[in-house]
Amino acid sequence: MDTTPPAGSELAELTAALNTFSAERHWQPFHTPKNLVMALSVEAAELVEIFQWLTPEQAADVMSDPERGEHVREEIADVLAYLLGLADKLGIDPAQALRDKMVKNAIKYPPGAPGL
Amino acid sequence: MDTTPPAGSELAELTAALNTFSAERHWQPFHTPKNLVMALSVEAAELVEIFQWLTPEQAADVMSDPERGEHVREEIADVLAYLLGLADKLGIDPAQALRDKMVKNAIKYPPGAPGL
Amino acid sequence: MDTTPPAGSELAELTAALNTFSAERHWQPFHTPKNLVMALSVEAAELVEIFQWLTPEQAADVMSDPERGEHVREEIADVLAYLLGLADKLGIDPAQALRDKMVKNAIKYPPGAPGL
Amino acid sequence: MDTTPPAGSELAELTAALNTFSAERHWQPFHTPKNLVMALSVEAAELVEIFQWLTPEQAADVMSDPERGEHVREEIADVLAYLLGLADKLGIDPAQALRDKMVKNAIKYPPGAPGL
Repeated sequence: MDTTPPAGSELAELTAALNTFSAERHWQPFHTPKNLVMALSVEAAELVEIFQWLTPEQAADVMSDPERGEHVREEIADVLAYLLGLADKLGIDPAQALRDKMVKNAIKYPPGAPGL
Repeated sequence: MDTTPPAGSELAELTAALNTFSAERHWQPFHTPKNLVMALSVEAAELVEIFQWLTPEQAADVMSDPERGEHVREEIADVLAYLLGLADKLGIDPAQALRDKMVKNAIKYPPGAPGL
Repeated sequence: MDTTPPAGSELAELTAALNTFSAERHWQPFHTPKNLVMALSVEAAELVEIFQWLTPEQAADVMSDPERGEHVREEIADVLAYLLGLADKLGIDPAQALRDKMVKNAIKYPPGAPGL
Repeated sequence: MDTTPPAGSELAELTAALNTFSAERHWQPFHTPKNLVMALSVEAAELVEIFQWLTPEQAADVMSDPERGEHVREEIADVLAYLLGLADKLGIDPAQALRDKMVKNAIKYPPGAPGL
């Protein structure tokens, strides 16, 4: 199994920057795994909130309004931040975890099979 | 502003693999921005579900059980998958969005200031 | 199966008040089942947000601060509002649904059995 | 301010039944406010999961399939269960909280004003 992202990778660089950021603000005691999963789900919900009253057409066009587009971009950043923070606390490399999950899903969902 | 992750990066590689995976299964029509934010929040909740009844101590030790650890790892993979899928649909580079958000947060939360 | 809450009940009274409230503001076109489940999950996340950085002890004592207690109370109201709105749109009586679920859970989780 | 639901009301009856159910299974130690908000958000996400890949038209018609309709009904029951459990732990009457919130929202959102 993996440990954290490989040194020098994009996710390792971001994780290190986030850890420095939290350390400088003395936030680490709050960043327990249980609290981080809560924060991750809250940030995901803040993305949902942007889309909840939009029609599918409005949702597909959400980036055309610069202010709202920037809002979406910031919430995506927040989700990534807590995902990396959680993965780091637990010793997981999210990129490797996703590669492994795709191998597993390729068997679970064979190409061309019906349904989701 | 960014567009998608820079070619050759880890996130660009994963995004391309996810797009191929979805295309082979004809899932793209379902992967609208509105549906993807819903799926992202559902996967985040599946992480929360693993932790909801654990004490802080049990939560901190969640990876010590191999089966549960693998479950956590898979849910982290799922969150990353939908986050990358959503960002790709919207033309956002999540890594650059996070770098920009950290710059903004460094001003909002000066080091050493009290509270979260 | 049930339809909506029985006339005269507390939940029927609240549902009727919510429907009048939405009609007066022309919000009904937005209140589709898909949008209402999204809004429900967002309101639940706003409750999570209040608790995410609290220790278990602070969380248990959350109502002792009047301002935060009122915040919790308002978010609970919001969750109930969208739950009733969704149930009404779908023709479900939430109270009867819960009574039926408890009968089912009483079989699934016999008293005295270990674990959750 | 309220305390718990008034004796004899529908929500008081359900709350009492839920408390008995939990007591018989020794679940109360797990039902801290922090854990209950997590469980509430997870159940809300299970509702979202049912709707996430549906078109607005399919979502509006979700109850026409008996099995899926029953699934929706059970998830609505689960959300109500954790909402009542949380409110009970915190000494909140959800029905009264919602009445008070509607008074507040009637001022915040005057009838006929544009937008959400």
